[in-house]
Amino acid sequence: MTTRELIHQVKTGSAVLAASDGRARDGLLSAIREGLLRDWPAIKEANDRDVEAAKDLAPSVRARLTFSRDKLDASVKGIGEVANLPDPIGKVLEKRELDSGFVLRRVSVPLGVVGMIFEARPDALIQIVSLAAKSGNGIILKGGSEAANTNSALASSISRSSDTTEIGDGWLLLLHSREDVNVMLSCREDLDLVIPRGSNQFVRYVMDHTSIPVLGHASGICHMYVDRDARLEMGVSCSMDAKTNYPAACNAIETLLVHVSIAAVFVPMVAAAFRKAGVIIHGDETVCSLVQGCVPYADGDWEKEYLALEINIHVVKDEGEAISFINAHGSHHTDAIITENPAAAEKFRVHVDSADVFVNCSTRFADGYRFGLGAEVGISTSKIHARGPVGLSGLMTSKWLLTGHGEVVSTYMGKDAKPFTHKELS
Amino acid sequence: MTTRELIHQVKTGSAVLAASDGRARDGLLSAIREGLLRDWPAIKEANDRDVEAAKDLAPSVRARLTFSRDKLDASVKGIGEVANLPDPIGKVLEKRELDSGFVLRRVSVPLGVVGMIFEARPDALIQIVSLAAKSGNGIILKGGSEAANTNSALASSISRSSDTTEIGDGWLLLLHSREDVNVMLSCREDLDLVIPRGSNQFVRYVMDHTSIPVLGHASGICHMYVDRDARLEMGVSCSMDAKTNYPAACNAIETLLVHVSIAAVFVPMVAAAFRKAGVIIHGDETVCSLVQGCVPYADGDWEKEYLALEINIHVVKDEGEAISFINAHGSHHTDAIITENPAAAEKFRVHVDSADVFVNCSTRFADGYRFGLGAEVGISTSKIHARGPVGLSGLMTSKWLLTGHGEVVSTYMGKDAKPFTHKELS
Repeated sequence: MTTRELIHQVKTGSAVLAASDGRARDGLLSAIREGLLRDWPAIKEANDRDVEAAKDLAPSVRARLTFSRDKLDASVKGIGEVANLPDPIGKVLEKRELDSGFVLRRVSVPLGVVGMIFEARPDALIQIVSLAAKSGNGIILKGGSEAANTNSALASSISRSSDTTEIGDGWLLLLHSREDVNVMLSCREDLDLVIPRGSNQFVRYVMDHTSIPVLGHASGICHMYVDRDARLEMGVSCSMDAKTNYPAACNAIETLLVHVSIAAVFVPMVAAAFRKAGVIIHGDETVCSLVQGCVPYADGDWEKEYLALEINIHVVKDEGEAISFINAHGSHHTDAIITENPAAAEKFRVHVDSADVFVNCSTRFADGYRFGLGAEVGISTSKIHARGPVGLSGLMTSKWLLTGHGEVVSTYMGKDAKPFTHKELS
Repeated sequence: MTTRELIHQVKTGSAVLAASDGRARDGLLSAIREGLLRDWPAIKEANDRDVEAAKDLAPSVRARLTFSRDKLDASVKGIGEVANLPDPIGKVLEKRELDSGFVLRRVSVPLGVVGMIFEARPDALIQIVSLAAKSGNGIILKGGSEAANTNSALASSISRSSDTTEIGDGWLLLLHSREDVNVMLSCREDLDLVIPRGSNQFVRYVMDHTSIPVLGHASGICHMYVDRDARLEMGVSCSMDAKTNYPAACNAIETLLVHVSIAAVFVPMVAAAFRKAGVIIHGDETVCSLVQGCVPYADGDWEKEYLALEINIHVVKDEGEAISFINAHGSHHTDAIITENPAAAEKFRVHVDSADVFVNCSTRFADGYRFGLGAEVGISTSKIHARGPVGLSGLMTSKWLLTGHGEVVSTYMGKDAKPFTHKELS
């Protein structure tokens, strides 16, 4: 069968999963968990081969690639946590009587088939599969090629386990090559959502090469603005956390904006803290005049996602300029203001056009787990479907269900039209 | 200024509207209403020119184009109804404490700038503008070219009225040519949603020529399935309403599916009713053997949107075949089952992959007003953002707002991590 045919099969094969009840889906998760524990020797052996083949790659890549027993145990625990989440299917989102006994409901249903492309991290595969199973979605996976053997071993184990349940294994497909990904991106009729993880260039490539909706973010250019009315120590500690806690994260800040009237005091303060942490500072003229060793601003710095211990510092005249700067140079991901002034905070909340707008805290809180979403599917900078950190609800859509007793619209039209009652029910 | 620059100006110009409170937006609607009444002579004169120029066009086109005093009064009344809707901005959709006094809220906010392309119906312009104003969205309009003079007069009046309010007129732009539309479709950074109305081919063209999200439906290929356990008179009356009440509507049915075990009785019954109403019947072999004058099925009929008094009738062996048929040949818009059998109804609800799935009523109820949404922005067959009839909520997105007192994530990480409380607030 061709890749296209295999993908089309998932569309039909996932109908059983979509229609299954919550208990059956939790049973599926249970079977997958037990299967992975049972198949551990084969998975370990496959992973050893991947790690051996990657011996010339960077240590950080090999660390993510290595699938230890500890990681298996953590993954298996994660499956249990996903199973324990409330069933996302069949939630009644709206309920309205149109007329006596004539009831309209909007209920949550699975999207259908989701394509997920992810980095060479075997635990990511397990997490994604468990989210798909819980939410009733067919899943088409393509993992980083360095993990090819491990991914095959994991997917085989999961398929075998699924096959022992009433749901079967038709809802799952592992792709193997970059060409397969291109085929998938063209299967608009068979996929309902694509979630790419990986480098900014890769996510951008996916967004530009498919008409299937894409959930994700190409870049995380986040800002913190320290206002005139900020508590300065709070400005330092939040900036430090937002930059240095995990610089490679999408919710780390790349640019710190500082109100001009506090610049002379605050910039040296925060620069000293940054210097201690080994952060390189790029600054405008004012900042460079205040900070020794500041790298003068160069064209394009405001749009850079450093993903490293580097930061821009820029002085602005007020919160209005900070807002314009953020909307113009940011990626509409996460931006924060530090201020004790409620009016400035409210202006910032309303006018910053980003998925997450924070007041007096670190941008690093922009995360599905920290937000209490139970599980994170991704972080979206789109305004459509899902925005910001997305939990299981990002894998759901809704359907309008109307149940009557032979009602026809002609009854409700014209001169003697019967009025609708339009009574909200709950 | 170029069209591209004008469009970009709406992005910035609509920020005032987006940030305005509900009272200011209702005041804007009021000013627009009064302005239209005051400018009626100029609007009438412009419309007369359009109608005169259209004298060789079909009477139905001229009827839609003609903007009578009655239509103005109805439009002005419609603005008042939109003003009376609850404010869609700032609704708290989720509220959760992450830690004591550290509160996360997800609130509804305007999408930003919406592009709307609509047919030559002056009242449509007024309706669209009022929905945009109420929801805080900038709007870029392009109406049918036959109504060019009327649209210009209406847009000028609305701009002048806006300019007398604190909101100004920067949120509104009328485009004039097909080339302008193509420019707009390429302005991915400045538009957040495009809503095309008009022919199926036109909507499909828009969907295929932009990477901006599109709200709408290219076609409405709807079905009714009359099950073995249907009350046959209900099957006849619902089919008749769904086909003949307004055949040009997207929620009218194109194909009637009939369970084989009732075909011999039901098909002649419904065919007699259809014949009385002048409906041409296209049928499979069984149907043609039961109905005199039935047009034998031809390739492609199952995918046709007749938009006229024509219908396909097809016999299926059970609800499973009906569901597969609908999913394969329909447009995922609205489909109904007529049955007294709860199991068949539930199977149909779960497995038919459409925006609206109805039991024992006409498909013609698929409509924002009938659903009680207050206003209809469009009907979406996408699973993303909005599905089915869409009210003002289709013009909204949400934003996560987190407000703290200097919280940093390092407090909640590592060995001595403070736990999140993740308490739902309401």
